[in-house]
Amino acid sequence: MQEKKVALIGFGNVARVLARLLVEKQPVLQQQYGFSTRVVAIGTGHHGMALNPAGIDVEQAIALVNSGQSLESLSTLPLPESMLDLIRRSEADVLFENSPVNHATGQPAIDHLRTGLQCGMHVITANKGPVVHAYRELTDLAAQQGRHFLFESAVMDGAPIFSLFREPLPATEVRAFSGVLNSTTNMIFELMEQGHSFAEAVARTQQMGMAETDPSNDIDGWDAAIKVAALSTVILGIPLTPAQVERTGIRAITSAMIQDARAAGERWKLVCTARRAGEHVVARVAPERVDSDSPFYSIRGTSSYVQFETDTLPGLGIVESDPSPRTTAYGLLADLVNAVRHD
Amino acid sequence: MQEKKVALIGFGNVARVLARLLVEKQPVLQQQYGFSTRVVAIGTGHHGMALNPAGIDVEQAIALVNSGQSLESLSTLPLPESMLDLIRRSEADVLFENSPVNHATGQPAIDHLRTGLQCGMHVITANKGPVVHAYRELTDLAAQQGRHFLFESAVMDGAPIFSLFREPLPATEVRAFSGVLNSTTNMIFELMEQGHSFAEAVARTQQMGMAETDPSNDIDGWDAAIKVAALSTVILGIPLTPAQVERTGIRAITSAMIQDARAAGERWKLVCTARRAGEHVVARVAPERVDSDSPFYSIRGTSSYVQFETDTLPGLGIVESDPSPRTTAYGLLADLVNAVRHD
Repeated sequence: MQEKKVALIGFGNVARVLARLLVEKQPVLQQQYGFSTRVVAIGTGHHGMALNPAGIDVEQAIALVNSGQSLESLSTLPLPESMLDLIRRSEADVLFENSPVNHATGQPAIDHLRTGLQCGMHVITANKGPVVHAYRELTDLAAQQGRHFLFESAVMDGAPIFSLFREPLPATEVRAFSGVLNSTTNMIFELMEQGHSFAEAVARTQQMGMAETDPSNDIDGWDAAIKVAALSTVILGIPLTPAQVERTGIRAITSAMIQDARAAGERWKLVCTARRAGEHVVARVAPERVDSDSPFYSIRGTSSYVQFETDTLPGLGIVESDPSPRTTAYGLLADLVNAVRHD
Repeated sequence: MQEKKVALIGFGNVARVLARLLVEKQPVLQQQYGFSTRVVAIGTGHHGMALNPAGIDVEQAIALVNSGQSLESLSTLPLPESMLDLIRRSEADVLFENSPVNHATGQPAIDHLRTGLQCGMHVITANKGPVVHAYRELTDLAAQQGRHFLFESAVMDGAPIFSLFREPLPATEVRAFSGVLNSTTNMIFELMEQGHSFAEAVARTQQMGMAETDPSNDIDGWDAAIKVAALSTVILGIPLTPAQVERTGIRAITSAMIQDARAAGERWKLVCTARRAGEHVVARVAPERVDSDSPFYSIRGTSSYVQFETDTLPGLGIVESDPSPRTTAYGLLADLVNAVRHD
């Protein structure tokens, strides 16, 4: 039985659910995959850091953070000077990077992941930023180090999108994809169909914790554009920045337009599309009316959808219904199993 | 560069498309996966057999079969006495089994596959019969022989259903699945929505080549039940025969019922469901009305859909749109790559 030492960089909601999922899944990891895990390092922005080679009690860590206290009391070694120092001194086999990320730069996640790889760790993240801004660099570095850089949860939570194009779909050329990838705008349209104004609908999604205080990231299409950029970069193999995605947000969609579509048996969706054109990709995020014969129509609430067109599959769609932090945490766990499978 | 010798047992539409796809995909197989293929044996029920260790010209074979002639002229070795003799003497590395199958027994496909495995071949089929009737035996034999028994195209053509639960979804427990898995009934309902009677709609699907002369296999739900049995056996890990699936066909659905649903913004679908209950599975095939908020609603024509509920993913759906024989052939090719990947 191999033991894999785990470092958790970022200890927000998803990382805490992951920490518990690792405990819950120990029997299956041990019996089916031949390894166990031990959390040896946790690094946070506002709750300090902990380093304990003998293993950190995850429930104690969650209780401390939930009560606003520092993790430092769980550390059995002198405290690290910085997050990068924590990573280097953790001697972990696998690094999970889920700290708050700057979408415009992918930092500090990229630095955390690079440092982990340099130390010989597998690195796994649910952050889109490093995929969009450093996919090539981190993938090449991982290959040099004989390690994995995986990020299944970066798009559509735990639904297998990136791993789908590893084993299951070999020797096929992806020509295009399209989808409904931003939940907040999807929910805003749904609330507007129910009679809420745009402003009310935005406020509701903020109360639900979906939209940020500044909702621009969602309603101006940036979140969708980042996801399109990540999918294009990895799955089409054509690097694309969010700024290169032709982007129209949903601010111009009025209640009258929503009701007009509804009367016609249609719905507005913020639709993402990307199509390969030679060495380039033409990518777009824009609101569109879809009818009930479209698979986009039934994507409600926080659910999402993407479909791929390849040279051998005219249409392959993936629906993710009702995701939760556990779904995202599962994507991270799946990456862990796939990273260490061939160790 | 490894060369993989291929035997094609059954040379109908899908096998011929596969033979051409193998030629088309030689560059990517060689460059990305490090192997080439050569067809050394073809066995048919009505067009004879051919055995040529130096490689059979696929276009010549297709031309002979299309013009109603025998493949024997392509053979450079004495003709085999039987299909099993062909398999044994082919010295192939990979056997593709796509001969006409008896759904009640899985034969003669099971015998072909068993013989291939006994000879040390990877065996791959698009037939559901062997999965339903001999999954355990053939999987165990493959493991003993250090070979693979793969069948991605047996359900939903080339859409990755079985491979999804290998690499992409480790350490998760599938609790249930549901879907629209039979195209013929889906098309019959669609034609009835357009105003055709049940009998007219059945006749149309027969003209399209979808339904058999005796349409019972589709309209009495047997094809759907076989698919449910295959998915339960492999993905839930609970062996199930088609007869154990509670099965209601579509003969009782009248034009009036179809139009009544339509007026309510709903559609009839032949819905498959299966749910784990302890060590057992409760499985059902029956026509149901679905509304436009259901992902089943937009599954039209020959498209199909399945969604899984696992302990970590509340809902993961796979849509396959507009499949063709090329889609099925691609599933076989994907199995080939995955079978020989670790040779």
